[in-house]
Amino acid sequence: MKNQLNTVLETLEAQTEQSLERLFEILRIPSISTDPAFHQDCENAAQWCANMLNDIGFEAKVFPTQGKPMVVGHYSPDFEVSGPRILFYGHYDVQPADPLELWDTPPFDPHLLDHPEHGKIIVARGASDDKAQFLTFLEACRAWHYVHKSLPLHITVLLEGEEESGSPSLPEFLDTQKESLKADIALVCDTGQWDNKTPAITTMLRGMAFTEVTLTGPNRDLHSGIYGGPVMNPIRALTKILGNLCDDQGRIQIPHFYDDVAPLSDNQKTQWEALNFQDIAYLESVGLSVPAGETGYSALEQLWSRPTLEINGIYGGYTGPGNKTIIPSTASAKISFRLVADQDPHKILQNFQDFIRSQIPDDCSVSFQNSDGSPAVCFDQSSIYVKSAAKALEDEFGTPALMMGCGASIPIVESFQNVLSMDALLVGFALEDDCIHSPNEKYNLSSFISGQRSWARIIDAFTRIN
Amino acid sequence: MKNQLNTVLETLEAQTEQSLERLFEILRIPSISTDPAFHQDCENAAQWCANMLNDIGFEAKVFPTQGKPMVVGHYSPDFEVSGPRILFYGHYDVQPADPLELWDTPPFDPHLLDHPEHGKIIVARGASDDKAQFLTFLEACRAWHYVHKSLPLHITVLLEGEEESGSPSLPEFLDTQKESLKADIALVCDTGQWDNKTPAITTMLRGMAFTEVTLTGPNRDLHSGIYGGPVMNPIRALTKILGNLCDDQGRIQIPHFYDDVAPLSDNQKTQWEALNFQDIAYLESVGLSVPAGETGYSALEQLWSRPTLEINGIYGGYTGPGNKTIIPSTASAKISFRLVADQDPHKILQNFQDFIRSQIPDDCSVSFQNSDGSPAVCFDQSSIYVKSAAKALEDEFGTPALMMGCGASIPIVESFQNVLSMDALLVGFALEDDCIHSPNEKYNLSSFISGQRSWARIIDAFTRIN
Repeated sequence: MKNQLNTVLETLEAQTEQSLERLFEILRIPSISTDPAFHQDCENAAQWCANMLNDIGFEAKVFPTQGKPMVVGHYSPDFEVSGPRILFYGHYDVQPADPLELWDTPPFDPHLLDHPEHGKIIVARGASDDKAQFLTFLEACRAWHYVHKSLPLHITVLLEGEEESGSPSLPEFLDTQKESLKADIALVCDTGQWDNKTPAITTMLRGMAFTEVTLTGPNRDLHSGIYGGPVMNPIRALTKILGNLCDDQGRIQIPHFYDDVAPLSDNQKTQWEALNFQDIAYLESVGLSVPAGETGYSALEQLWSRPTLEINGIYGGYTGPGNKTIIPSTASAKISFRLVADQDPHKILQNFQDFIRSQIPDDCSVSFQNSDGSPAVCFDQSSIYVKSAAKALEDEFGTPALMMGCGASIPIVESFQNVLSMDALLVGFALEDDCIHSPNEKYNLSSFISGQRSWARIIDAFTRIN
Repeated sequence: MKNQLNTVLETLEAQTEQSLERLFEILRIPSISTDPAFHQDCENAAQWCANMLNDIGFEAKVFPTQGKPMVVGHYSPDFEVSGPRILFYGHYDVQPADPLELWDTPPFDPHLLDHPEHGKIIVARGASDDKAQFLTFLEACRAWHYVHKSLPLHITVLLEGEEESGSPSLPEFLDTQKESLKADIALVCDTGQWDNKTPAITTMLRGMAFTEVTLTGPNRDLHSGIYGGPVMNPIRALTKILGNLCDDQGRIQIPHFYDDVAPLSDNQKTQWEALNFQDIAYLESVGLSVPAGETGYSALEQLWSRPTLEINGIYGGYTGPGNKTIIPSTASAKISFRLVADQDPHKILQNFQDFIRSQIPDDCSVSFQNSDGSPAVCFDQSSIYVKSAAKALEDEFGTPALMMGCGASIPIVESFQNVLSMDALLVGFALEDDCIHSPNEKYNLSSFISGQRSWARIIDAFTRIN
């Protein structure tokens, strides 16, 4: 089997130029999903993807939706295989390119340029997010198919065209295509490395819970001269409650809030500490300098493994220009939680409500408007998929793969879990400075090459999973 | 002199019907100052007032302004007089009458109706605020002039037409007419009795200070997934500070806040306690039931003699529909103080700012936007004007006049102090249930009659002041 992989890797190396040409073809299609003017370009990009898949042995088809089409391709090996069935996910749509005047080269005229730190870079809208990323996987498949006439696994590729505009058609599509998309593991290539030397697998995503709380005091806005004193001001009551939700150590005071938060494993903690993340530089990039989260946790631990409560918005009373001396009838705040480990969104919101209710003054009433939340996603790092992929990445980069967290949620991962009952393996080769969603988006040529090689190694490793 | 007054009182009684006819004339003019459609009506009302004044021996003139005209009339007695020079103030403009459908009789078609509690009432827009009120004084003058051919004091009458729209022309007018308006005491008839049996003089008005505080954290709104944890949320910081501005006893925690607050005199306290003010009924009228101000003070004491801090408005972050999981860059609150006794608005704001600055987290910056404030007004209850008027009111009602406070400020009183360096004597005959600014505004016929008689008695009493 080792030889089988080596031949694929050699083929990838020999075909770098052709694979770049293919990448440039798709990069030239301005498949901006959010702007109706580019609808035909999105259709063209979907067709290009389907052609590419058919070209390398997939049975691929473009599926129309209410929005942009989905591309699905199935590969059935010529021989009996024992490895897992794979669903690979990427997206062919891109962000709008404006402001155009900030681009050094036209966004849909891809260029291979020299970069002082990264060597050769591919510059174009969509280079890193997500066209070159998903092509790393398809090029690995192409080389494997070319060398061995068959892929060694059952692979389904799903390429979406609405990721940059909220994936409105995806949940229904997954649901109706459930049977054909079902696999043992989903591979998603839309994340990044830790840095240009260190590959990464994202295994922890924080969950979410959201509510809006409204306190009502008097039955209408009152004149503060005629009522100021004896009358309860709901803004005062709300600020008192919200202002004491966290103690001076940044610990959230809601009872049982931390009950289902797992402590970080020593192993994980050591790995993250070794990254030498620059807390201060990170804060300075947003105009701050003093870490403000829970005492005793590094910024990375706070972001990846600790829950938060944020007041996203607050409003009440008169908020226009000048002054109006009223005691308002109501005051509201929008509050969201980022959740980790086993924290249950419904339980968190219930405990929050109970805690607020226990503190409101006798004379105020309170109401809550909750939104759908989602628990944290935490993939088992000892799973055979994660371990196999980590080993493959280490073989490629010569550096152990970092198990990263992500402070935000990634909707597709939730959809795979909820609709297809399937874990996802998040492996990507983007870098922090790829300028995704910004002018002069780029993807390192080294990312494009080692990405292809990494997927070839992961495919190879997966053939040994029973 | 007693006979002189008695003849005037008899004349007032004899002319009740004619005085009511005159009142109905001015009530029929829809002098709504805020609505340009009624501009000519305001001019007509001003002219009516000037004619009325000229009719009873004043030299009166209508003065155009940028807005509605001012009416000024001077009365110079035929003989040498020793009493104080008086400036009487009222306003001929009224609030809009809508919603018209809630009126039982048309707002500008005055009616004399029966009321189960108050006997005869005069129903029309402006009946209580302020046409019948200022006419009580002019009718007293008319009767005096009719009986004795001359008033016994130098009296200037100033009738404004913009009181219901913020008096924009008044300060400049007072300034340019300073010499002709200067007097020893201003009489203002735009306040009320305590109840229909108890006359009142308003001697305490709370002052105002106003500021808007803005906390800034990160240099832009941030994604709460990518930054939530290590980054300071300025709404959290602001709510923490605002939420602790008052302790559990309702005491404001700003250092030195109460330094210049005078305790209520035992005498005043006893008088107010005897009023048996219904705290709970007052709160229930606005949907509340639990007194929320400073512990140890009755609602009336809180409203009339204690300072307050109110958060009039608060805003920050996302306040639209639904949710947006950001950490906002800024959070703001609009804050006003009601001041009493010798509290200085500038010192109060300075202490507030110092107190806030001492609490903001290292990483937040803070800015303040102050507005003009004004100190409390507290007239000396032992002044000869107050004592004379109180005696006159007691003679009329058979009940001692109550020295009332007012939780709000009355701009004209400040203007008289600031521009004309003159105290005001606030005597009025309105009642709580007069529905001013609302449909079915009324004025008790008994208020109209005893108001006229009270002013005759006050004029008489003032002639004995040297």
